[in-house]
Amino acid sequence: MRLLNQEKIDDVQINGLKIIQRQDWFSYGVDAVALADFVDVKKGKRILDMGTGTGIIPLLLSAFTSYEEIIGIEIQASVAKMAQKSVVLNELENRISIVEMDINDSIAQFGKNSFDTIVTNPPYMAFDEGMHNENEVKAISRHEIKAELEDIVNIAADLLKDNGNFYMIHRPHRLVDIFYYCRKYRLEPKLVKFIHPKEGKVPNIVLIKCTKFGKAELKYMPPLNVYDENGTYTESLLEIYRRKK
Amino acid sequence: MRLLNQEKIDDVQINGLKIIQRQDWFSYGVDAVALADFVDVKKGKRILDMGTGTGIIPLLLSAFTSYEEIIGIEIQASVAKMAQKSVVLNELENRISIVEMDINDSIAQFGKNSFDTIVTNPPYMAFDEGMHNENEVKAISRHEIKAELEDIVNIAADLLKDNGNFYMIHRPHRLVDIFYYCRKYRLEPKLVKFIHPKEGKVPNIVLIKCTKFGKAELKYMPPLNVYDENGTYTESLLEIYRRKK
Repeated sequence: MRLLNQEKIDDVQINGLKIIQRQDWFSYGVDAVALADFVDVKKGKRILDMGTGTGIIPLLLSAFTSYEEIIGIEIQASVAKMAQKSVVLNELENRISIVEMDINDSIAQFGKNSFDTIVTNPPYMAFDEGMHNENEVKAISRHEIKAELEDIVNIAADLLKDNGNFYMIHRPHRLVDIFYYCRKYRLEPKLVKFIHPKEGKVPNIVLIKCTKFGKAELKYMPPLNVYDENGTYTESLLEIYRRKK
Repeated sequence: MRLLNQEKIDDVQINGLKIIQRQDWFSYGVDAVALADFVDVKKGKRILDMGTGTGIIPLLLSAFTSYEEIIGIEIQASVAKMAQKSVVLNELENRISIVEMDINDSIAQFGKNSFDTIVTNPPYMAFDEGMHNENEVKAISRHEIKAELEDIVNIAADLLKDNGNFYMIHRPHRLVDIFYYCRKYRLEPKLVKFIHPKEGKVPNIVLIKCTKFGKAELKYMPPLNVYDENGTYTESLLEIYRRKK
Protein backbone atom coordinates (compact mmCIF):
# COMPACT_ATOMS: atom_id res chain seq x y z
CA MET A 1 0.00 0.00 0.00
CA ARG A 2 1.66 3.20 -1.18
CA LEU A 3 0.50 6.33 0.67
CA LEU A 4 0.68 9.71 -0.99
CA ASN A 5 1.86 12.90 0.64
CA GLN A 6 -0.46 13.90 3.55
CA GLU A 7 -2.22 10.51 3.57
CA LYS A 8 -2.30 8.55 6.82
CA ILE A 9 -3.94 5.37 8.05
CA ASP A 10 -6.45 5.86 10.88
CA ASP A 11 -8.05 3.20 13.05
CA VAL A 12 -11.86 3.35 12.80
CA GLN A 13 -12.11 1.44 16.12
CA ILE A 14 -15.01 -0.60 14.75
CA ASN A 15 -14.58 -4.21 13.67
CA GLY A 16 -10.84 -3.72 12.98
CA LEU A 17 -11.52 -1.29 10.12
CA LYS A 18 -8.82 1.10 8.99
CA ILE A 19 -9.22 4.15 6.76
CA ILE A 20 -6.87 6.38 4.79
CA GLN A 21 -7.47 10.06 5.38
CA ARG A 22 -5.59 13.27 4.62
CA GLN A 23 -4.94 15.90 7.25
CA ASP A 24 -5.76 18.72 4.82
CA TRP A 25 -9.17 17.25 3.84
CA PHE A 26 -12.20 16.42 5.94
CA SER A 27 -11.97 13.53 8.36
CA TYR A 28 -15.10 11.55 9.10
CA GLY A 29 -16.87 12.13 12.39
CA VAL A 30 -19.76 10.94 14.51
CA ASP A 31 -22.07 11.73 11.57
CA ALA A 32 -20.78 8.91 9.39
CA VAL A 33 -20.91 6.39 12.21
CA ALA A 34 -24.44 7.45 13.19
CA LEU A 35 -25.62 7.20 9.57
CA ALA A 36 -24.19 3.71 9.03
CA ASP A 37 -25.71 2.62 12.34
CA PHE A 38 -29.10 4.03 11.24
CA VAL A 39 -29.25 1.77 8.14
CA ASP A 40 -31.28 -1.42 8.54
CA VAL A 41 -29.05 -4.48 8.62
CA LYS A 42 -30.59 -6.00 5.54
CA LYS A 43 -33.10 -4.98 2.92
CA GLY A 44 -32.07 -6.69 -0.27
CA LYS A 45 -28.58 -7.11 -1.61
CA ARG A 46 -27.30 -3.93 -3.19
CA ILE A 47 -26.66 -0.60 -1.49
CA LEU A 48 -25.34 2.69 -2.89
CA ASP A 49 -23.54 5.51 -1.07
CA MET A 50 -23.96 8.76 -3.01
CA GLY A 51 -20.89 10.97 -2.54
CA THR A 52 -18.81 8.51 -0.58
CA GLY A 53 -15.75 10.72 0.05
CA THR A 54 -13.08 8.69 1.84
CA GLY A 55 -15.35 5.63 1.71
CA ILE A 56 -16.08 5.64 5.43
CA ILE A 57 -19.78 4.80 4.95
CA PRO A 58 -19.18 1.72 2.74
CA LEU A 59 -16.53 0.52 5.21
CA LEU A 60 -18.91 0.91 8.15
CA LEU A 61 -21.77 -0.69 6.19
CA SER A 62 -19.55 -3.72 5.63
CA ALA A 63 -19.34 -4.08 9.42
CA PHE A 64 -22.91 -3.11 10.35
CA THR A 65 -25.01 -4.64 7.56
CA SER A 66 -25.39 -7.75 5.42
CA TYR A 67 -25.49 -6.11 1.98
CA GLU A 68 -23.44 -8.18 -0.46
CA GLU A 69 -22.71 -5.39 -2.89
CA ILE A 70 -21.79 -1.97 -1.48
CA ILE A 71 -21.09 0.72 -4.09
CA GLY A 72 -19.75 4.17 -3.27
CA ILE A 73 -19.69 6.87 -5.92
CA GLU A 74 -17.47 9.92 -5.62
CA ILE A 75 -17.03 12.77 -8.09
CA GLN A 76 -13.52 13.82 -7.06
CA ALA A 77 -10.89 11.56 -8.65
CA SER A 78 -8.24 12.05 -5.98
CA VAL A 79 -10.72 11.31 -3.17
CA ALA A 80 -12.15 8.28 -4.99
CA LYS A 81 -8.62 6.86 -5.43
CA MET A 82 -7.94 7.23 -1.73
CA ALA A 83 -11.25 5.52 -0.87
CA GLN A 84 -10.39 2.66 -3.22
CA LYS A 85 -7.06 2.19 -1.42
CA SER A 86 -8.94 1.97 1.90
CA VAL A 87 -11.10 -0.80 0.46
CA VAL A 88 -7.96 -2.74 -0.54
CA LEU A 89 -6.36 -2.02 2.84
CA ASN A 90 -9.35 -3.70 4.52
CA GLU A 91 -9.45 -6.53 1.95
CA LEU A 92 -13.07 -5.68 1.15
CA GLU A 93 -12.76 -5.61 -2.66
CA ASN A 94 -15.27 -8.46 -2.91
CA ARG A 95 -18.02 -6.40 -1.23
CA ILE A 96 -17.18 -2.73 -1.81
CA SER A 97 -16.67 -0.90 -5.12
CA ILE A 98 -15.69 2.74 -5.30
CA VAL A 99 -16.65 4.39 -8.59
CA GLU A 100 -15.41 7.82 -9.66
CA MET A 101 -18.57 9.37 -11.03
CA ASP A 102 -20.83 12.40 -11.02
CA ILE A 103 -24.13 11.40 -9.41
CA ASN A 104 -25.82 13.00 -12.41
CA ASP A 105 -24.43 10.13 -14.50
CA SER A 106 -25.49 7.42 -12.10
CA ILE A 107 -28.84 6.60 -13.69
CA ALA A 108 -27.17 6.11 -17.07
CA GLN A 109 -24.55 3.90 -15.39
CA PHE A 110 -26.69 1.77 -13.07
CA GLY A 111 -30.21 2.14 -14.49
CA LYS A 112 -33.45 3.05 -12.74
CA ASN A 113 -34.75 0.83 -9.92
CA SER A 114 -31.33 -0.76 -9.51
CA PHE A 115 -30.64 -0.41 -5.75
CA ASP A 116 -32.37 -1.88 -2.72
CA THR A 117 -31.07 0.88 -0.47
CA ILE A 118 -29.33 4.23 -0.87
CA VAL A 119 -27.46 6.23 1.76
CA THR A 120 -25.97 9.69 1.59
CA ASN A 121 -24.08 12.15 3.74
CA PRO A 122 -24.32 15.12 1.38
CA PRO A 123 -22.68 18.55 1.66
CA TYR A 124 -24.40 20.29 4.56
CA MET A 125 -24.30 23.85 3.30
CA ALA A 126 -26.38 25.32 0.48
CA PHE A 127 -24.28 26.87 -2.29
CA ASP A 128 -24.87 30.42 -1.05
CA GLU A 129 -24.64 29.61 2.66
CA GLY A 130 -21.50 30.67 4.56
CA MET A 131 -18.03 30.97 3.06
CA HIS A 132 -16.63 28.45 0.60
CA ASN A 133 -13.39 26.79 1.66
CA GLU A 134 -10.37 27.79 -0.44
CA ASN A 135 -9.38 24.14 -0.59
CA GLU A 136 -11.49 22.83 -3.46
CA VAL A 137 -11.73 19.28 -2.13
CA LYS A 138 -13.01 20.56 1.21
CA ALA A 139 -15.36 23.06 -0.45
CA ILE A 140 -17.01 20.31 -2.53
CA SER A 141 -17.45 18.15 0.58
CA ARG A 142 -19.04 21.00 2.50
CA HIS A 143 -21.07 23.04 0.01
CA GLU A 144 -23.66 22.12 -2.61
CA ILE A 145 -21.28 22.88 -5.45
CA LYS A 146 -21.55 19.70 -7.50
CA ALA A 147 -25.08 18.69 -6.54
CA GLU A 148 -27.99 20.29 -4.73
CA LEU A 149 -30.21 18.54 -2.23
CA GLU A 150 -33.14 18.42 -4.65
CA ASP A 151 -31.00 16.73 -7.34
CA ILE A 152 -29.70 14.16 -4.88
CA VAL A 153 -33.22 13.26 -3.76
CA ASN A 154 -34.53 13.17 -7.32
CA ILE A 155 -31.72 10.90 -8.52
CA ALA A 156 -31.95 8.64 -5.46
CA ALA A 157 -35.69 8.21 -6.09
CA ASP A 158 -34.96 7.02 -9.63
CA LEU A 159 -32.12 4.69 -8.64
CA LEU A 160 -34.11 3.00 -5.86
CA LYS A 161 -36.32 -0.01 -6.33
CA ASP A 162 -39.96 0.39 -5.25
CA ASN A 163 -40.22 0.15 -1.45
CA GLY A 164 -36.47 0.63 -1.24
CA ASN A 165 -35.12 2.78 1.58
CA PHE A 166 -33.20 6.03 1.38
CA TYR A 167 -31.14 7.15 4.39
CA MET A 168 -29.76 10.65 4.74
CA ILE A 169 -27.89 12.55 7.40
CA HIS A 170 -28.03 16.33 7.39
CA ARG A 171 -28.14 19.48 9.47
CA PRO A 172 -31.51 19.98 11.18
CA HIS A 173 -31.97 23.46 9.70
CA ARG A 174 -32.51 21.81 6.28
CA LEU A 175 -35.32 19.53 7.49
CA VAL A 176 -38.09 21.43 5.69
CA ASP A 177 -36.16 21.15 2.41
CA ILE A 178 -35.54 17.47 3.05
CA PHE A 179 -39.17 16.60 3.82
CA TYR A 180 -40.43 18.77 0.98
CA TYR A 181 -38.16 17.31 -1.70
CA CYS A 182 -38.43 13.73 -0.44
CA ARG A 183 -42.20 13.82 -0.61
CA LYS A 184 -42.09 15.62 -3.96
CA TYR A 185 -40.05 12.75 -5.42
CA ARG A 186 -42.08 10.03 -3.64
CA LEU A 187 -39.44 9.12 -1.07
CA GLU A 188 -41.79 9.35 1.90
CA PRO A 189 -40.02 10.19 5.18
CA LYS A 190 -40.78 7.35 7.61
CA LEU A 191 -38.31 7.75 10.47
CA VAL A 192 -36.22 10.56 11.97
CA LYS A 193 -33.59 10.61 14.68
CA PHE A 194 -32.21 13.80 16.11
CA ILE A 195 -28.70 13.93 17.50
CA HIS A 196 -28.03 16.52 20.20
CA PRO A 197 -24.55 17.50 21.42
CA LYS A 198 -25.90 17.22 24.99
CA GLU A 199 -29.22 16.61 26.72
CA GLY A 200 -31.35 19.76 26.71
CA LYS A 201 -29.46 21.32 23.77
CA VAL A 202 -30.89 21.88 20.30
CA PRO A 203 -30.11 19.10 17.80
CA ASN A 204 -27.16 19.58 15.43
CA ILE A 205 -27.59 16.46 13.29
CA VAL A 206 -30.66 14.71 11.92
CA LEU A 207 -31.02 11.27 10.37
CA ILE A 208 -33.90 10.58 7.99
CA LYS A 209 -35.14 7.28 6.56
CA CYS A 210 -37.50 7.42 3.58
CA THR A 211 -39.29 4.66 1.69
CA LYS A 212 -39.99 4.90 -2.03
CA PHE A 213 -43.79 5.10 -2.41
CA GLY A 214 -44.12 4.65 1.38
CA LYS A 215 -47.34 5.50 3.24
CA ALA A 216 -47.28 8.88 4.99
CA GLU A 217 -46.54 8.33 8.66
CA LEU A 218 -43.45 9.66 10.34
CA LYS A 219 -42.00 7.86 13.34
CA TYR A 220 -39.24 8.99 15.68
CA MET A 221 -36.29 7.36 17.40
CA PRO A 222 -35.44 8.61 20.88
CA PRO A 223 -33.00 11.55 20.67
CA LEU A 224 -29.31 10.61 20.83
CA ASN A 225 -27.06 12.76 23.00
CA VAL A 226 -23.36 12.64 22.05
CA TYR A 227 -21.86 13.94 25.29
CA ASP A 228 -23.03 13.65 28.88
CA GLU A 229 -22.85 16.46 31.43
CA ASN A 230 -19.15 15.68 32.07
CA GLY A 231 -18.25 16.08 28.41
CA THR A 232 -17.57 12.38 27.85
CA TYR A 233 -19.33 10.22 25.25
CA THR A 234 -22.73 8.89 26.36
CA GLU A 235 -23.40 5.18 26.66
CA SER A 236 -25.84 5.42 23.73
CA LEU A 237 -23.07 6.69 21.49
CA LEU A 238 -20.49 4.21 22.70
CA GLU A 239 -22.94 1.39 22.01
CA ILE A 240 -22.74 2.23 18.32
CA TYR A 241 -18.97 1.81 18.36
CA ARG A 242 -19.31 -1.53 20.16
CA ARG A 243 -21.96 -2.72 17.72
CA LYS A 244 -21.60 -6.02 15.91
CA LYS A 245 -23.50 -6.94 12.79
CA MET B 1 -73.53 33.10 34.76
CA ARG B 2 -75.90 30.23 33.96
CA LEU B 3 -74.19 26.88 33.49
CA LEU B 4 -75.82 24.20 31.39
CA ASN B 5 -76.04 20.56 32.31
CA GLN B 6 -72.53 18.96 32.44
CA GLU B 7 -70.80 22.36 32.37
CA LYS B 8 -68.36 23.18 35.18
CA ILE B 9 -65.95 25.99 35.94
CA ASP B 10 -62.28 24.94 36.09
CA ASP B 11 -59.36 26.95 37.41
CA VAL B 12 -56.68 27.35 34.69
CA GLN B 13 -54.10 28.13 37.42
CA ILE B 14 -52.57 30.83 35.24
CA ASN B 15 -53.14 34.50 35.92
CA GLY B 16 -56.44 33.81 37.72
CA LEU B 17 -58.10 32.52 34.55
CA LYS B 18 -61.16 30.30 34.76
CA ILE B 19 -62.69 28.19 32.01
CA ILE B 20 -66.00 26.45 31.48
CA GLN B 21 -65.64 22.87 30.33
CA ARG B 22 -67.91 19.86 30.00
CA GLN B 23 -67.00 16.50 31.40
CA ASP B 24 -68.36 14.71 28.33
CA TRP B 25 -66.26 16.80 25.88
CA PHE B 26 -62.53 17.30 25.60
CA SER B 27 -60.77 19.21 28.34
CA TYR B 28 -57.69 21.24 27.43
CA GLY B 29 -54.29 19.87 28.35
CA VAL B 30 -50.60 20.67 28.31
CA ASP B 31 -50.88 21.14 24.52
CA ALA B 32 -52.94 24.32 24.76
CA VAL B 33 -50.68 25.81 27.41
CA ALA B 34 -47.54 24.94 25.45
CA LEU B 35 -48.99 26.46 22.26
CA ALA B 36 -49.97 29.74 23.93
CA ASP B 37 -46.53 29.89 25.55
CA PHE B 38 -44.89 29.34 22.14
CA VAL B 39 -46.52 32.45 20.63
CA ASP B 40 -44.35 35.57 20.58
CA VAL B 41 -45.58 38.16 23.07
CA LYS B 42 -46.29 40.75 20.42
CA LYS B 43 -46.24 40.94 16.66
CA GLY B 44 -48.88 43.44 15.67
CA LYS B 45 -52.31 43.83 17.17
CA ARG B 46 -54.68 41.18 15.93
CA ILE B 47 -54.47 37.44 16.46
CA LEU B 48 -56.76 34.62 15.33
CA ASP B 49 -57.27 31.17 16.85
CA MET B 50 -58.62 28.77 14.21
CA GLY B 51 -60.89 26.17 15.84
CA THR B 52 -60.84 27.60 19.33
CA GLY B 53 -63.01 24.96 21.03
CA THR B 54 -63.58 25.97 24.65
CA GLY B 55 -61.61 29.17 24.06
CA ILE B 56 -58.62 28.08 26.14
CA ILE B 57 -56.07 29.47 23.66
CA PRO B 58 -57.57 33.00 23.51
CA LEU B 59 -57.80 33.01 27.33
CA LEU B 60 -54.14 32.02 27.67
CA LEU B 61 -53.09 34.48 24.96
CA SER B 62 -54.74 37.24 26.99
CA ALA B 63 -52.38 36.33 29.84
CA PHE B 64 -49.22 35.56 27.86
CA THR B 65 -49.30 38.15 25.04
CA SER B 66 -50.03 41.81 24.31
CA TYR B 67 -52.38 41.38 21.38
CA GLU B 68 -55.25 43.84 21.68
CA GLU B 69 -57.71 41.88 19.60
CA ILE B 70 -57.93 38.13 20.08
CA ILE B 71 -60.47 36.32 17.89
CA GLY B 72 -61.36 32.67 18.23
CA ILE B 73 -63.49 30.95 15.59
CA GLU B 74 -65.32 27.71 16.27
CA ILE B 75 -67.61 25.76 13.96
CA GLN B 76 -69.69 24.01 16.63
CA ALA B 77 -72.40 26.32 17.97
CA SER B 78 -72.72 24.70 21.39
CA VAL B 79 -68.94 24.80 21.92
CA ALA B 80 -68.68 28.41 20.72
CA LYS B 81 -71.44 29.44 23.15
CA MET B 82 -69.59 27.84 26.02
CA ALA B 83 -66.33 29.59 25.00
CA GLN B 84 -68.16 32.92 24.86
CA LYS B 85 -69.40 32.37 28.41
CA SER B 86 -65.81 31.75 29.54
CA VAL B 87 -64.79 35.09 28.01
CA VAL B 88 -67.54 36.82 29.99
CA LEU B 89 -66.63 34.89 33.11
CA ASN B 90 -63.09 36.30 32.88
CA GLU B 91 -64.35 39.80 31.94
CA LEU B 92 -62.26 39.70 28.76
CA GLU B 93 -64.99 40.81 26.32
CA ASN B 94 -62.94 43.88 25.41
CA ARG B 95 -60.03 41.74 24.14
CA ILE B 96 -61.49 38.38 23.10
CA SER B 97 -64.25 37.65 20.58
CA ILE B 98 -65.55 34.16 19.94
CA VAL B 99 -67.19 33.76 16.53
CA GLU B 100 -69.24 30.72 15.53
CA MET B 101 -67.97 30.09 12.04
CA ASP B 102 -66.65 27.50 9.59
CA ILE B 103 -63.01 28.36 8.86
CA ASN B 104 -63.92 28.00 5.18
CA ASP B 105 -65.98 31.20 5.56
CA SER B 106 -63.28 33.12 7.40
CA ILE B 107 -61.71 34.81 4.37
CA ALA B 108 -65.10 36.13 3.29
CA GLN B 109 -65.69 37.35 6.84
CA PHE B 110 -62.31 38.88 7.74
CA GLY B 111 -60.65 39.42 4.35
CA LYS B 112 -57.20 38.41 3.14
CA ASN B 113 -54.11 39.76 4.94
CA SER B 114 -56.20 40.68 7.95
CA PHE B 115 -54.31 39.08 10.87
CA ASP B 116 -50.85 39.72 12.29
CA THR B 117 -50.69 36.26 13.80
CA ILE B 118 -52.67 33.02 13.61
CA VAL B 119 -52.60 30.07 16.00
CA THR B 120 -54.24 26.69 15.75
CA ASN B 121 -54.55 23.46 17.68
CA PRO B 122 -56.27 21.44 14.97
CA PRO B 123 -57.73 17.93 15.13
CA TYR B 124 -54.76 15.59 15.45
CA MET B 125 -56.10 12.63 13.53
CA ALA B 126 -56.57 12.38 9.77
CA PHE B 127 -60.13 11.53 8.74
CA ASP B 128 -59.29 7.88 8.09
CA GLU B 129 -56.94 7.43 11.06
CA GLY B 130 -58.19 5.45 14.06
CA MET B 131 -61.81 5.22 15.18
CA HIS B 132 -64.15 8.21 15.22
CA ASN B 133 -65.66 9.03 18.59
CA GLU B 134 -69.41 8.35 18.82
CA ASN B 135 -69.79 11.71 20.54
CA GLU B 136 -69.95 14.13 17.58
CA VAL B 137 -68.46 17.09 19.45
CA LYS B 138 -65.48 14.98 20.52
CA ALA B 139 -65.12 13.45 17.05
CA ILE B 140 -64.91 16.89 15.42
CA SER B 141 -62.28 18.00 17.93
CA ARG B 142 -60.20 14.91 17.32
CA HIS B 143 -60.55 14.03 13.64
CA GLU B 144 -60.24 16.04 10.44
CA ILE B 145 -63.97 15.91 9.79
CA LYS B 146 -64.73 19.58 9.22
CA ALA B 147 -61.33 20.70 7.91
CA GLU B 148 -58.18 18.96 6.74
CA LEU B 149 -54.68 20.10 7.56
CA GLU B 150 -54.05 21.33 4.03
CA ASP B 151 -57.20 23.51 4.10
CA ILE B 152 -56.24 25.00 7.45
CA VAL B 153 -52.77 25.92 6.21
CA ASN B 154 -54.11 27.29 2.94
CA ILE B 155 -56.71 29.47 4.67
CA ALA B 156 -54.25 30.65 7.33
CA ALA B 157 -51.83 31.72 4.60
CA ASP B 158 -54.54 33.86 3.02
CA LEU B 159 -55.73 35.40 6.30
CA LEU B 160 -52.21 36.36 7.44
CA LYS B 161 -50.48 39.60 6.62
CA ASP B 162 -47.11 39.33 4.86
CA ASN B 163 -44.39 38.37 7.38
CA GLY B 164 -47.13 37.39 9.82
CA ASN B 165 -46.57 34.32 11.96
CA PHE B 166 -48.52 31.08 12.04
CA TYR B 167 -48.24 28.82 15.10
CA MET B 168 -49.47 25.26 15.14
CA ILE B 169 -49.38 22.39 17.58
CA HIS B 170 -49.74 18.86 16.28
CA ARG B 171 -48.68 15.26 16.64
CA PRO B 172 -45.11 14.66 15.44
CA HIS B 173 -46.17 11.91 13.03
CA ARG B 174 -47.79 14.62 10.85
CA LEU B 175 -44.62 16.72 10.57
CA VAL B 176 -43.97 15.84 6.93
CA ASP B 177 -47.53 16.91 6.01
CA ILE B 178 -47.11 20.10 8.03
CA PHE B 179 -43.79 21.11 6.47
CA TYR B 180 -44.98 20.14 3.00
CA TYR B 181 -48.25 22.08 3.11
CA CYS B 182 -46.78 25.07 4.93
CA ARG B 183 -44.07 25.51 2.32
CA LYS B 184 -46.58 24.85 -0.48
CA TYR B 185 -48.70 27.77 0.75
CA ARG B 186 -45.68 30.01 1.51
CA LEU B 187 -45.87 29.72 5.29
CA GLU B 188 -42.20 28.85 5.74
CA PRO B 189 -41.46 26.80 8.88
CA LYS B 190 -38.96 28.79 10.95
CA LEU B 191 -38.99 27.21 14.41
CA VAL B 192 -39.91 23.85 15.92
CA LYS B 193 -40.12 22.61 19.47
CA PHE B 194 -40.60 18.96 20.34
CA ILE B 195 -42.34 17.97 23.55
CA HIS B 196 -41.39 14.60 25.02
CA PRO B 197 -43.31 12.86 27.82
CA LYS B 198 -39.93 12.14 29.48
CA GLU B 199 -36.25 12.56 28.68
CA GLY B 200 -35.07 9.87 26.27
CA LYS B 201 -38.60 9.13 25.00
CA VAL B 202 -39.86 9.89 21.50
CA PRO B 203 -41.73 13.20 21.18
CA ASN B 204 -45.54 13.15 21.33
CA ILE B 205 -46.24 16.81 20.59
CA VAL B 206 -44.61 19.27 18.18
CA LEU B 207 -44.93 23.04 17.98
CA ILE B 208 -44.24 24.79 14.68
CA LYS B 209 -43.85 28.50 13.94
CA CYS B 210 -44.05 29.61 10.30
CA THR B 211 -43.61 33.01 8.72
CA LYS B 212 -45.55 34.06 5.62
CA PHE B 213 -42.99 34.47 2.81
CA GLY B 214 -40.21 33.72 5.34
CA LYS B 215 -36.70 32.72 4.25
CA ALA B 216 -36.01 28.98 4.42
CA GLU B 217 -34.08 28.25 7.59
CA LEU B 218 -35.46 26.08 10.33
CA LYS B 219 -34.36 26.64 13.92
CA TYR B 220 -35.05 24.50 16.99
CA MET B 221 -35.91 25.10 20.61
CA PRO B 222 -34.41 22.71 23.16
CA PRO B 223 -36.74 19.73 23.69
CA LEU B 224 -39.29 20.10 26.49
CA ASN B 225 -39.81 17.11 28.76
CA VAL B 226 -43.18 17.07 30.55
CA TYR B 227 -42.34 14.62 33.36
CA ASP B 228 -39.08 13.91 35.16
CA GLU B 229 -37.90 10.42 36.12
CA ASN B 230 -40.14 10.50 39.23
CA GLY B 231 -43.26 11.17 37.18
CA THR B 232 -43.67 14.76 38.40
CA TYR B 233 -43.79 17.83 36.17
CA THR B 234 -40.37 19.15 35.13
CA GLU B 235 -39.22 22.64 36.10
CA SER B 236 -39.33 23.64 32.41
CA LEU B 237 -43.02 22.81 32.26
CA LEU B 238 -43.85 24.45 35.59
CA GLU B 239 -42.13 27.63 34.40
CA ILE B 240 -44.80 27.99 31.71
CA TYR B 241 -47.53 27.89 34.36
CA ARG B 242 -45.69 30.52 36.42
CA ARG B 243 -45.16 32.74 33.38
CA LYS B 244 -46.19 36.38 33.43
CA LYS B 245 -46.72 38.47 30.31
